[in-house]
Amino acid sequence: MLELVSINGNVTPPEKAQISVFDRGFLYGDGIYEVARSYNRIFFGLEDHIDRLLNSAQRIQLEIGMSKDELISEIYRIYKHSEINDAYMRIVITRGEGRINLDPTQTELSSNVVIFIQKLPKIDPKIYDRGISLLTASVFRNPKKSLDPNIKSGNYLNNIMALGEAKKKGADDALMTNREGEVTEGTTWNIYAVINGEIVTPPDDADILRGITRKTLRELCANNKLKWIERPIKLAELVKADEVFTTGSVKEVVPVSQIDGQKIKNCPGAITKLLQKLYKGYIDDYCSARIGKYS
Amino acid sequence: MLELVSINGNVTPPEKAQISVFDRGFLYGDGIYEVARSYNRIFFGLEDHIDRLLNSAQRIQLEIGMSKDELISEIYRIYKHSEINDAYMRIVITRGEGRINLDPTQTELSSNVVIFIQKLPKIDPKIYDRGISLLTASVFRNPKKSLDPNIKSGNYLNNIMALGEAKKKGADDALMTNREGEVTEGTTWNIYAVINGEIVTPPDDADILRGITRKTLRELCANNKLKWIERPIKLAELVKADEVFTTGSVKEVVPVSQIDGQKIKNCPGAITKLLQKLYKGYIDDYCSARIGKYS
Repeated sequence: MLELVSINGNVTPPEKAQISVFDRGFLYGDGIYEVARSYNRIFFGLEDHIDRLLNSAQRIQLEIGMSKDELISEIYRIYKHSEINDAYMRIVITRGEGRINLDPTQTELSSNVVIFIQKLPKIDPKIYDRGISLLTASVFRNPKKSLDPNIKSGNYLNNIMALGEAKKKGADDALMTNREGEVTEGTTWNIYAVINGEIVTPPDDADILRGITRKTLRELCANNKLKWIERPIKLAELVKADEVFTTGSVKEVVPVSQIDGQKIKNCPGAITKLLQKLYKGYIDDYCSARIGKYS
Repeated sequence: MLELVSINGNVTPPEKAQISVFDRGFLYGDGIYEVARSYNRIFFGLEDHIDRLLNSAQRIQLEIGMSKDELISEIYRIYKHSEINDAYMRIVITRGEGRINLDPTQTELSSNVVIFIQKLPKIDPKIYDRGISLLTASVFRNPKKSLDPNIKSGNYLNNIMALGEAKKKGADDALMTNREGEVTEGTTWNIYAVINGEIVTPPDDADILRGITRKTLRELCANNKLKWIERPIKLAELVKADEVFTTGSVKEVVPVSQIDGQKIKNCPGAITKLLQKLYKGYIDDYCSARIGKYS
């Protein structure tokens, strides 16, 4: 089998993978998820992804009933049913199903664990050379005091509305700001400006998801004497930066060519290209160190 | 059959009602819904609920593919399969299913329509006499510029977090404020204060869902020479009001006995009791006028 879905440990072909309409993920988006990408059968950064999944669960008081090690083992156990070497893995855990009732403290709930293994989505290789165009969405990113972007949950309508608006207006993706006009993140990625040779990105406590790729880049910058600065960035400042790029687990490091129709000075800029290369090297080292461990 | 679920027109018992895990409602909360209650087989305010459903759809650019009349007919067609006279009906419409891809402008999506008919949830009759206790949640209501509460969507985690917090601390339900400290609404209801004989509630453009029961009360107040005022209310002002009550389609008009441990002066107050009665009368008239129309 290539693509498959596991529901509470039972492996099925994607077209047969169904869940109750009483599942709280379906009714309310009352669940959490993570996405990781495998490189030659090793999921890059899976430990970090599972740490974040456990953090999301804790933040919404969702009982997974599995430890970090058990979750990692289960993902690799399911992956063995697939022959895809470079796979897209999504794990969704909902609070379970019961009678329709918003109350999450009901005792009869038992979480549902769904694991998707599939081919990587088609990524046009040109985006790494030519960059992507962004449109600033008219909706603001969910503020952390309402629905913290660090809870990676089944509530993605905010991002979907932003992406729909960008696509309709011909852009490749949507950039999101907060009500102060500061840049936060994109629909599924963090954002960075290169200004006077320094890599600038919104801070940990902005309305952003603290990305795993972002964390890796921070480490790479420290190890390679590149200056990394976390501070609020106004949209006007971003547009005038020397380089702009995005990061995410699936598409990695992607240069940005324009924002709201305004061209970014260098695309891809020298630092963006360097980080693309350093990140690839980091993935190689990570995966090499784990060959045989999970197969 | 008593309780049932219809998925795209196919009626099944609740325990067999399943949907693809690739449905965008399950993955992202990318869907909308409405809830209505029937009184002796007539769904109260169904026209208003469907208007609001169509508005939610338009706001997130979701193509339902059915008109208002078709939706109402379909709900009553499904309802004929159930023998419950006083039912809870929930209609959920998602953007459909496809490969995992956040982009809502993909052309291959076709909406999924799920209709639940079930018994009314158990409501303790004492709440109408003794009132309910509320706790102000530490999370703020989603602001309308991020995720407008008027889009009645599958993104209910904000409310769930508030309710979970309230339940854990022993309250019956959660009240939500915005970052200005103004009262917005509860987890599934609007809120009102009675101050010097006037009924005060947050305005249409607050971070609230414009409730159908709220709209009905506004009409009842106009017809019965009760003063209705829409304006921002600070939490401190609400707690000191002469009466406080909530409204929602399922539980109707419910008095509030305390907020954050502070007792409300009158519970239930005279105006709350009058509105409970007027609302019941309004429902009776509405349903009587439609007897035979949908059976």
